[in-house]
Amino acid sequence: MEEFVSTGIRYQDGRLEILDQQLLPREEQWVECRTPQDMFDSIFHLKVRGAPLIGVAASLAILQVVRQGGGFKEVTDASELIGQSRPTAVNLKTCLNRILEGVNGDNYSSDLISERVMGIVKEDVALCEGMGRSGADLIEDGDNVLTHCNTGGLATAGIGTALAVIRKAWDHGKKIHVFVDETRPLLQGGRLTTWELERLNIPYTLITDNMAGYLMQQKRINKAFVGSDRIATNGDFANKVGTYSVAVLCKHHDIPFYPVAPWTTVDLNCPEGKSIPIEERTADEVRGVKGAAGDLRWSPADCKVYNPAFDVTPAKYCSGWVLDDGLYNLEQFKAECAKRR
Amino acid sequence: MEEFVSTGIRYQDGRLEILDQQLLPREEQWVECRTPQDMFDSIFHLKVRGAPLIGVAASLAILQVVRQGGGFKEVTDASELIGQSRPTAVNLKTCLNRILEGVNGDNYSSDLISERVMGIVKEDVALCEGMGRSGADLIEDGDNVLTHCNTGGLATAGIGTALAVIRKAWDHGKKIHVFVDETRPLLQGGRLTTWELERLNIPYTLITDNMAGYLMQQKRINKAFVGSDRIATNGDFANKVGTYSVAVLCKHHDIPFYPVAPWTTVDLNCPEGKSIPIEERTADEVRGVKGAAGDLRWSPADCKVYNPAFDVTPAKYCSGWVLDDGLYNLEQFKAECAKRR
Repeated sequence: MEEFVSTGIRYQDGRLEILDQQLLPREEQWVECRTPQDMFDSIFHLKVRGAPLIGVAASLAILQVVRQGGGFKEVTDASELIGQSRPTAVNLKTCLNRILEGVNGDNYSSDLISERVMGIVKEDVALCEGMGRSGADLIEDGDNVLTHCNTGGLATAGIGTALAVIRKAWDHGKKIHVFVDETRPLLQGGRLTTWELERLNIPYTLITDNMAGYLMQQKRINKAFVGSDRIATNGDFANKVGTYSVAVLCKHHDIPFYPVAPWTTVDLNCPEGKSIPIEERTADEVRGVKGAAGDLRWSPADCKVYNPAFDVTPAKYCSGWVLDDGLYNLEQFKAECAKRR
Repeated sequence: MEEFVSTGIRYQDGRLEILDQQLLPREEQWVECRTPQDMFDSIFHLKVRGAPLIGVAASLAILQVVRQGGGFKEVTDASELIGQSRPTAVNLKTCLNRILEGVNGDNYSSDLISERVMGIVKEDVALCEGMGRSGADLIEDGDNVLTHCNTGGLATAGIGTALAVIRKAWDHGKKIHVFVDETRPLLQGGRLTTWELERLNIPYTLITDNMAGYLMQQKRINKAFVGSDRIATNGDFANKVGTYSVAVLCKHHDIPFYPVAPWTTVDLNCPEGKSIPIEERTADEVRGVKGAAGDLRWSPADCKVYNPAFDVTPAKYCSGWVLDDGLYNLEQFKAECAKRR
């Protein structure tokens, strides 16, 4: 029987559970996903989040359908349904496509599906290790590092993307300190990255998103590492809203700024950032906060809101691209994309 | 009998009331201040806020003591008490000192106190009108304007500082639209500026602070106007935290950026921004939200936090200084400071 346990997801004895990230850090509650609809809901409502973890979670949900006796039709239906839960995350569709590639009603085999799913899961763990290795040397002893959103064990099946770099540097014995953007509106920094860094005993300080510039002005930030939801072949990348502002502020203050992602996040069919669709989410997220800690609206009831979940950072703001197999500059990155296409 | 009615305070028939800003926009509740202690509490608990409005509110509380038959001792006691409600607010002490300047037990006159109080109130209203006039022409028909924090009728006795400029442009018939930074951690944009713009019927959209950069990238912001808590004579200015990031983002995107303030905010004894002390506030403000809508903490309980209430924007980011008597460029501003010193 397949088994897998990580910070945010576990599959044991055919039971698929996700750690409800909406409840963190207040409560550590594991939620069972019995059906594809359960997983759709969990992804849609951000109980599972982080592009890589979404891909892994969706894959494990497909595995569960197989283990529950589902055949080609059930697996295809599940894939179709779950694939619609988040439009911007490229990992989700990539994983689902990989699982079903070349599979049809005639050659369908549960063993093949299982093998592919577990391959995806193990691969994600290995990719995280790779990113950590690729970027750790960029961080020097004594550095103050800025990060945005959550890119750790709660966003991947392994140790993370941007947070993997920070974690590896810390594991190498470097005395570092992390400034954590709270990352409005959904507060992934304030809720999740803080929770992870507490558990890892890595020194950190939480700030509101609008304080990062002031810290940079005071020369209190040495480097910034962020994750990515999709990277175009020209180096532009989409990530949690606010990333672009961090990138501009870093550029302005001569602070190295790196997106960290596995090659699976690179969309070889996407030539530039402009082609990346940006999901807009519900106004209520900006009108207040909604979550386990409580629902609170502080703005006028029908207050008009703009709520893009992501933004796009052009390649020119990046000091390099930290990928699972190494650190790339723009020329190298473009060349590698051309090779892989 | 003296009378005064504004967005956030009213004095009618000897009855002094303040609009409880802690309850906005959820509830519009006027709170009567019968005694100096009532006003002390209202200011201390941020029911009245905004440096100019605090000064005006304190002044009207003194007037009320006079109208209730108080003599020199009562007025002095009241001034002493209310003066301690927010030790850092400069306007508060400036106003109280102006009211009692040269007054002693022998020459005390209720008419003089009344005249001085109403002078302060009327002056603040006039300064707001002046700022509105000085800046309104900077806004063109069709402009999308960004603003930060709350700088309107809830922060002053009149139509505001930065919001006065926006309001005047609107009153002149220009079709404009305002993007409102929610302004973490205390959410003055999300709670108060939205409420004011709703009442004024000026089209607006609320965003989280980290979305402004993305809007600028999309060329959806034409100008930015912010208030100021203190301006140094070299043009640097302190304002609500996040202002500096807005300034850098504007600079980077070639978007005109203006601080708006009355000359009373210019500190002629302050040569540069570095000399301005920056107040740090309690960690709980960043760990979650606290207010009338409820208290909510979403980060780990003992989460380490950095919470500067203000930041300093160097003069080089400003396209001009909108003061109550006109629009200044840096050279003009410095010359005028030198003249006034």
